[in-house]
Formats: sequence, C-alpha cells, structure tokens
Amino acid sequence: MVSKPKTLGRKAFRSKAISQGEDFGLKVMVLGADGYLGRPLSLHLLRLGHEVIGVDNLSRRRRVREVGGRSAISLGNPYIWYNRVNALHGGRFDWRIADLLDGEEVEYLFEYYKPDAVVHLAEQPSAPYSQMDRKHAVDTQTNNTIGTLNVLFAIKKYAPDCHLVKLGTMGEWGTPNVDIPEGKFEIKYRGRKDTLPFPKQAGSFYHLTKVFDSHNITYTCRTWGLRSTDIMQGVVYGVVTDDMKVEGSIDMYEPALLTRFDFDQYFGTSLNRFCAQAVIDFPLTIYGSGEQKRGFIALRDSIQCITIALNNPPEKGEYRVWNQFDECYSILELASLVQRVGSEFGMDVKIKAIPNPRVEASKHWYNPVREQLPAHGFKPTHTIEEELRITLPILMKNKDRIESRRHVILPSTDWREAK
Amino acid sequence: MVSKPKTLGRKAFRSKAISQGEDFGLKVMVLGADGYLGRPLSLHLLRLGHEVIGVDNLSRRRRVREVGGRSAISLGNPYIWYNRVNALHGGRFDWRIADLLDGEEVEYLFEYYKPDAVVHLAEQPSAPYSQMDRKHAVDTQTNNTIGTLNVLFAIKKYAPDCHLVKLGTMGEWGTPNVDIPEGKFEIKYRGRKDTLPFPKQAGSFYHLTKVFDSHNITYTCRTWGLRSTDIMQGVVYGVVTDDMKVEGSIDMYEPALLTRFDFDQYFGTSLNRFCAQAVIDFPLTIYGSGEQKRGFIALRDSIQCITIALNNPPEKGEYRVWNQFDECYSILELASLVQRVGSEFGMDVKIKAIPNPRVEASKHWYNPVREQLPAHGFKPTHTIEEELRITLPILMKNKDRIESRRHVILPSTDWREAK
Repeated sequence: MVSKPKTLGRKAFRSKAISQGEDFGLKVMVLGADGYLGRPLSLHLLRLGHEVIGVDNLSRRRRVREVGGRSAISLGNPYIWYNRVNALHGGRFDWRIADLLDGEEVEYLFEYYKPDAVVHLAEQPSAPYSQMDRKHAVDTQTNNTIGTLNVLFAIKKYAPDCHLVKLGTMGEWGTPNVDIPEGKFEIKYRGRKDTLPFPKQAGSFYHLTKVFDSHNITYTCRTWGLRSTDIMQGVVYGVVTDDMKVEGSIDMYEPALLTRFDFDQYFGTSLNRFCAQAVIDFPLTIYGSGEQKRGFIALRDSIQCITIALNNPPEKGEYRVWNQFDECYSILELASLVQRVGSEFGMDVKIKAIPNPRVEASKHWYNPVREQLPAHGFKPTHTIEEELRITLPILMKNKDRIESRRHVILPSTDWREAK
Repeated sequence: MVSKPKTLGRKAFRSKAISQGEDFGLKVMVLGADGYLGRPLSLHLLRLGHEVIGVDNLSRRRRVREVGGRSAISLGNPYIWYNRVNALHGGRFDWRIADLLDGEEVEYLFEYYKPDAVVHLAEQPSAPYSQMDRKHAVDTQTNNTIGTLNVLFAIKKYAPDCHLVKLGTMGEWGTPNVDIPEGKFEIKYRGRKDTLPFPKQAGSFYHLTKVFDSHNITYTCRTWGLRSTDIMQGVVYGVVTDDMKVEGSIDMYEPALLTRFDFDQYFGTSLNRFCAQAVIDFPLTIYGSGEQKRGFIALRDSIQCITIALNNPPEKGEYRVWNQFDECYSILELASLVQRVGSEFGMDVKIKAIPNPRVEASKHWYNPVREQLPAHGFKPTHTIEEELRITLPILMKNKDRIESRRHVILPSTDWREAK
C-alpha cells in the first residue's frame, strides 16, 4: 500500500510558525474571496503577514455565466488559485466553499476560526442584475440582506470582538442636493438638535440591499455591541495590484494570481466597461447625457483602504461609516480620459450616448465628504490616467475574450419596467 | 344524481348588482385579512359599500400557536367567518388563502382582481418574535421584505394605478431628540438645502423590516410611478368596532364577526396585554422604568384612518407618510389608566416593574408630528378610558381563555442576546 502524500494544513503551519517565533498578524476572514476585490485583498493581507480564511460560494462565476458574460481575465479553477496562494504564503491561507444563506454553516465557520476581523464582500453586486425581473430582485434582496444577517448572528455568537468591515456603496446616499457626510450629521428641526444618520436614497433593488445591511449593522452594533466599518465605496476600476507580481515571472504579473474583470452590461462597472470597449473598437456607451457624477477608486486603492480599516478597528459597539473613493468625475469626463489614454496605444476610441436605462438625475450636485480615509493615512497610488496605462495593455492581451462577449455589453434592462 | 347547490360567486353578485344600478365602491384587496386589523377593516369597508378581497396565509394563527399563545377571543374557522361576512354584505367579499412569498400567486391575484387599492397588513408583526433567535429574525426579514417586494412587482405589472396603503410603524423612527415629521423634512448642511426623508432608527429586526419596506416603496413610487400611503402606526389597542354589532343579536357584538386579541409576550402589544393581565389578576408588567413614550390608537380609529387614506389616494408616483396615532403616553401612564378603569369594574390592579428585555431609551424626547390625518378629517372616537370601559368587560367574558395562557405573558426574549 502506498500512503497518501500529506500537505501541511493551515493549523499545522500556524503552530509550526508560531513555535518558530513567526508573527501571523490578524486572522481575517474574507467573505467573497473569489471575487474581483476578494482575490487581490486576500493576496495583499497575506503579503502583509496576516492569516486569511477565504470564503466563497462561487456565485459570481455562476451569475456572470447566467447573463452570458465572461471575465476578460481567465480565472481557472479556484482550488488551483487557492493552492498557489497558500504555497506562496507559507500555509497562512485557508479556503472554504460556503453560502452565507446557510446560517448554520456561517455559524460553524465563525465558531471554528474565531476571526479577529471579517471583510464582507460576498454580495450580489450588480444593480442592473437586480432590476432584470422580479426573480432577480428577490434573489438579490434575499441573498444580500439575509446573508449579512447570518454573518451578524455568527459574529455575536462566536466572535463578538470581531471587526466587521462591510462593503457598502456610495450609491446608498443617492444624489442629495447637499454634501454627503460620512454617516451621521447634526440636524436641527423645530428648535431642537440631534446627531442622526444621514438619509439614504438608493437607486436600485441592489443598492437598497446595501441600505438594509447598513440598518441591520447599525442596529447590532448598538444592541449587541458589535464593531463595524461600513464602507461606502465608489465605482472601482483597474485590473491588477502589485501583489500579483511575482519575482522572476516573465509576464510581470503571474496569471494564476490575477482577478476577474467583467465588462458585460450587468457586472461591468462604467470605467472598466469603457476600457474593454476601447480594446475591441466598440464606441464607449454613455447612459443619457453622461453628466451624472460618481466617486471612483482604483482596485489597488480599494485594497489599501480596506487594509487601513483593518489596521484601525473601531471600538466595541462602534458603527462607523467611511466614504471610500479617490475622486469624483462625470461619466463623460471618464469616457474622455479613456479616449485620450487609448490614443496613446494607437486606439481610435469613439463615444456614443444612448438612452439612460436607469432612473437617475443627470444634472445634480455631488460633493461627498471624504475625511476619514486621508486622516488614517490613505494616499492614492496613481492618477486615473496612470492606472489606465496599466489596464489597457493587459486587456489588449485578452482582446479575444472580450471580443467573444461583444454582444452582452449594451444594456437591455430598463429601470422603468418590471418583468 | 343530485346536483350541487350553487352559491352566487362575487363576480355573479357584482354583475347582478351592477345591472340593478348598485354601486360597488372601490375594489380593495386586504392583505392579512384574517388578522387583528384585517378582520375589522374588511367588515368596515364592506359596510361602506366597497368590494373587498381578503387574502391571508393564516400565519398569524400558526405563529401564535408556535409561541404557546392563544387569542383571548375565539376566532373559529376562517371559512365560516368568510361565509358569514359575505352573506351579510351581499356577496361583495371574496377570500383567498395565499402567501405573499409566492410571487407567482401574488401576480395572479393582481392580474385576476385588478384592485383599485390594496391595504397591506400581511406581515410578521412582532418585535420580540423577530428577536427570539436567528431563525425567527431571518423568517421575519424574509417574510416581510420579500412579501412586500412581490406585492410591488404585482402592482406594477397588473394594477399600476392601484393605491398601496402599507402598514408601517412609528417604531421606524426610533426616538430621536427632535420632533418626528411625517416623511420628509428640510435639511441644511454645509450651506446647502434639500428636502429629504427623515432618518430612521428602528429598534428590532422586525421594526427594521418596516424600514426596508418603506425604502422599497419609496423607490418604486419614484421609479415606476406607483402611489402609496405608508402609515407609521402607533400601538393599537381595543377589541371591538361598531361594525361587529349586528341588529337583533343578544350580545350586541356578533361572535362570528369579532377579531383576534393577543396578550402573550410576543404578539400582545402593551396596552392590550395590560388589559388581559388586569382581567386575570396578574400585575401589569412594566418593562424598565416605564418612562418610554409611544403613540397609541384605538382599533376602531386605526380602521377609520386607513379608510381615510383609501378615500384620499395620493397622486400617481406619490409616496406619502402619515403618522397614525391618537395620543402619546408613557407606559407607566397607560398602566395607571388600566388600574383606574379596572377599579371601576371591581378589579384590584397592581403594577410591577421588571428589567427591560428590550434595548431602548427609557427617558427621551417624543413629539411626533401628526398633521395629515386631522387635515383629512380624522377625529378620535373615544378617549382611552372610554375604550378601556368597552374592552375590559369583553375580556372578562373570556377570562378562562386568558387564564389558560397566563404562563406566556412574561417576556423571555432578551434583546441583548443572540440565539
């Protein structure tokens, strides 16, 4: 009989490392570890010396396939990714396939790992997907709201000191005609004063789930003494981070360490979609006048910000809100940027306005406060142009993959309709 | 062969009545028609000449049984109630057993009936039930949020002009240190102005669902042009309405027309629970100091208010909020009222403070605005004392039923814990 080869598991590695005086840093659970943000975040935390438990149900892969999309970057088998990352980082990475809707399993994970922090990225992240029809609206609101509720119960029961870093969206605020504070603001009404949560006006069934999450988290921080950083993130763009570089690799970036890059009408966010369109000579599609303004942040800076939150946890019982973006642009300004940088690579990028499938203000005030992150040391790594100069060449290498999904780029879901 | 006896259905009655020049008024769908409010509301609308479609999944009966509770008033078979009410009101009442979580069935109902208005009372209504453990929190948030979402889709698809009267709760607002407006208020921030939804600070997983509903409804009014009155209702009390009186009945109130009356720790609201406690010589249990203030409204006045909303529908696309209560009292003031009125009936009512199982402010500002209802003609029918003089004797006749559930009155769910 031949005995099976043994691989040292995370626990064995940990005890071996600790016996050798190695520091394991924080034990961080990353929910949604197979996603656009989850993969580079896991890599980054591991490189900083933290221990990471990645959890995912692979639903993003399923949903992108469902809408006929495809990541511009090939992902491959998640277990190969896990093995490679784990090998690179001395066995400090663990990996679980689990669904947050399974409350028992979520509690099991928190009881087993008792993480110091959890970064919750495991939600259905697309507004147009949630607007497609009743079933997708129900799926999105159930998945996100109940998934987060299960996480809150698991934290309270098995890791009550755990810091929950929750990914929300700047879209929770909508576009009020005043500046947008980070969480609370002082209100005066009929001669009295209070400091209250700033009102939210979300613009899709998906964005609404982030509002519901924020309410549930606020409540459990107050009632159960949990601690949380609720990140109102802008639109993320970009394709790589420096942690994907491996010394000696010919391509600079190691293919096995890359993350997904979606550009279809459902899962492609505006700036990433523009980049993909530029690469296949498809006019950049502006929804409506293109004057709607949003906050944007590069993938690597989003990871930087989440890391800052992890390194600076709030007090027990504290619920805090960070507006997480670098700069605000109108959609038209972004398209022009892609046009300009594209020309440096010999692209003749065109811009085309189409009727806006969303119900949103075209001209509006937009001035969100962003004080927390800079106060904690956040500094943007690159300008948008510099990031585009990194993104476009990588996408050009994957032109065939993008070309193969040219037909799922234009929007077909209208916010005004219900199916 | 004997042919089955034929009963004239609602449609046949309607066409017969219309051919005879009879007015059927509005076609109102009452969701949650078997509940505490749904039964008297259906009766009242029928008496006013409207056509009513009652929908219920009988889950309130199931949930009260689940927690070991029992209605102080015997309800009997819901079909007997339906037949009696329908016979009384010339076939203008229709009745469906359906679950709002079944999106296909909800759409079928709206396509089939195309109601002019829908009163949505079909939610899990208990805060302590939602706080019991994870499963009850998940059940409550799924049932209420997704049920309402299904209703919104059904309205948009099959009855887009339908007026949605939605039962919310004053508890959505929490207890801010300023007055509570009805919906929006003018905000000034950093030198600019806007009129925004007033911030909400709900205090249980149940109350949070009403906040989620309000967000979903606001959004669909704005995006789909639906119309809705979102009723922030205070605590309801009382046991009968005049519509339950039938001429010639010996008891004044016809037993077959009564509604449920819960007094257990989960489904009994404070004032109703106090009345039940008084009847069985059980000290009225005050949670904490009893200084927490809330708005209260009698059952008959709640029905009056909902009727006012139905008679004064908002414009298409309009989302409006009404604060629906008569007067604000502290819990201690209410207990004292029950004590005083109880003594008129020879009861020696005691009051006992117990530790508050909820997490809520004991001393706080409480001054909600209530301008919409009076402006539309609302006038309270009785004082609280007068209503108590009607309630207590009816409960005394059902003393045995209350006595049989004495053991489920005291709270056993602690807001600070998670199970």
